[in-house]
Amino acid sequence: MENVRVAHWGLGAMGGGIARLVASKKGLESVAAVDINPAKIGRDLGAVIGLDRQLNVAVAPSLTEAMAGRKADVLMLATSSFVREVYPQIIAALDLGMNVVTIAEEMAFPWANAPELAEKIDAHAKAKGLSVIGTGVNPGFILDTLIITLTMGCHDVKKIRAARINDLSPFGTTVMQTQGVGTTPEQFAAGVADGSIVGHIGFAESMGLIARALGWKLDRIEQSKEPIVSNVYRETPYVKVQPGMVAGCRHTAKAYMNGEVVMEFEHPQQIHPQLANVETGDYVWIEGTPSLSVANRPECPGGLGTMGAAVNVIPHVINARPGLITMADIPVTHAICGDVRDLIGQKQV
Amino acid sequence: MENVRVAHWGLGAMGGGIARLVASKKGLESVAAVDINPAKIGRDLGAVIGLDRQLNVAVAPSLTEAMAGRKADVLMLATSSFVREVYPQIIAALDLGMNVVTIAEEMAFPWANAPELAEKIDAHAKAKGLSVIGTGVNPGFILDTLIITLTMGCHDVKKIRAARINDLSPFGTTVMQTQGVGTTPEQFAAGVADGSIVGHIGFAESMGLIARALGWKLDRIEQSKEPIVSNVYRETPYVKVQPGMVAGCRHTAKAYMNGEVVMEFEHPQQIHPQLANVETGDYVWIEGTPSLSVANRPECPGGLGTMGAAVNVIPHVINARPGLITMADIPVTHAICGDVRDLIGQKQV
Repeated sequence: MENVRVAHWGLGAMGGGIARLVASKKGLESVAAVDINPAKIGRDLGAVIGLDRQLNVAVAPSLTEAMAGRKADVLMLATSSFVREVYPQIIAALDLGMNVVTIAEEMAFPWANAPELAEKIDAHAKAKGLSVIGTGVNPGFILDTLIITLTMGCHDVKKIRAARINDLSPFGTTVMQTQGVGTTPEQFAAGVADGSIVGHIGFAESMGLIARALGWKLDRIEQSKEPIVSNVYRETPYVKVQPGMVAGCRHTAKAYMNGEVVMEFEHPQQIHPQLANVETGDYVWIEGTPSLSVANRPECPGGLGTMGAAVNVIPHVINARPGLITMADIPVTHAICGDVRDLIGQKQV
Repeated sequence: MENVRVAHWGLGAMGGGIARLVASKKGLESVAAVDINPAKIGRDLGAVIGLDRQLNVAVAPSLTEAMAGRKADVLMLATSSFVREVYPQIIAALDLGMNVVTIAEEMAFPWANAPELAEKIDAHAKAKGLSVIGTGVNPGFILDTLIITLTMGCHDVKKIRAARINDLSPFGTTVMQTQGVGTTPEQFAAGVADGSIVGHIGFAESMGLIARALGWKLDRIEQSKEPIVSNVYRETPYVKVQPGMVAGCRHTAKAYMNGEVVMEFEHPQQIHPQLANVETGDYVWIEGTPSLSVANRPECPGGLGTMGAAVNVIPHVINARPGLITMADIPVTHAICGDVRDLIGQKQV
């Protein structure tokens, strides 16, 4: 069997890491790459992502140029968090005959925030006989697929609480700004109000995915973003936080059904949480028959986990029925230690 | 859409619990029941499983009699732990046009201990256009499907350690005997030697399932069964354990690949572990990129979890491609809080 041919769109921290992981896997081969950064265009993909070998793929400024005269089985799309921004990119990829894996957070369950575009993607993918999926560490794994899996033995579920408590220290300027790190409490409130401080993107998607899997009809989802005001000095290469300033964003969400809270998720993200004696981890509490109380400490790292989930889902998106699919529609996604081609079957109908 | 029609074979503690759970689910309907216990034969299934309503299904002594003049979509098979014992029952069910869910531990991955029968079941199911799956809390969930899912974000996996530490106190005479509870250390050793003390059935199945999913080629699996000798008096309605006697079985397994241990599982099962200051729980440690350290405390209860997994997998076995399938071949299995029929799609090909 030929290698699975992989195209890449977006070679930032995540997209570049995905390309490095693809290069390490038996049975996968990168055949095309797109990025808008002039410093990357025209160079060999291997050099751009920091490998010490050539991949014989020149980074192109557009998908059309990247794919000229070649075909790929799947596009790894890492350009944006939002359905409205990746929508035309997904359509272009489908028109070029590729299945699509994207780490755009909203694409984990695009019916939450962009139902019309979700339906258009679904119809277009079906017409082309191809599949599109959104994944990542969160949404995609910790606060949805893992929770759904944990209910496997449950006779009923009354309520799900979960928390993902992580460390933002490794991230760069963009994340500091979108999480409000280094602001004053007043600047934080203004940033939330004007939409520049977004916190976590994914609560509505994770909760929507869980509700659809379990068969819950939600009334509404309420979210709140509060500043994590530091008592101590904290600093990273990208930001300095004096005591009294904001070290991160405590983003929470509640999902209601029949007027009752049935899901309550918390995702406080800050730099150097250990300086405030906060232990990082992923936590899930399922109240039902039986109840479960699960902790993963420390948390599954966001960057590594997102790259891993995106690459590990490649065989599933190739095998899947055509259309827009979710992590709850496909077989369990897992680490691939052998040849990826061993997991490729006949595409479902 | 009509209700999903469910037949039951085996109405003991687990099979009876499965039938009660089926009776509680919207979209499922029990249409036939088989048991060899003369005290159950001829009575209404509702009374036999302790419901306060009739189900209008008489318990029959054989599948042929139970199915006379009727059809079912799926058989819930809870008669034995071993492939060789459920094999003819599975063939009979396939010949009557039913998909099969079984909680026979060896059926979670029958290629481990009965590869020829596994191939025969697979061929027979494919010829009939039907699907067969083995599931349960363990094997089926904690030490395999959950572990496989937890690797979703991993770039590679070097080693997996896991422990399921549970409480045998709720179980009856059969489990006490097969785990050696209430024996002397000498009797325990003799029971292990003559095969009457079996410990946990499922290590080879769980490890085989994980290895196949991840793409590991194992050299061999080594198992060990040691007595848990009590320092204190322990007692249940079925057994009394004096200090110096055996309160349970510490069953462990190691899987080797290329001469190295890549999986190391432990499943100590005893009555009243809290009397020895043992905290029950399910634990998974994945060494890889990234590593994970997961705990579920207390453990997912074995009986409830097995019933739940068996019923929750019903839509997946109906939708699945024909043949003998595993928990790693189907979409994430999860609690069903709505109508089971909402999860039924077109059978894959």
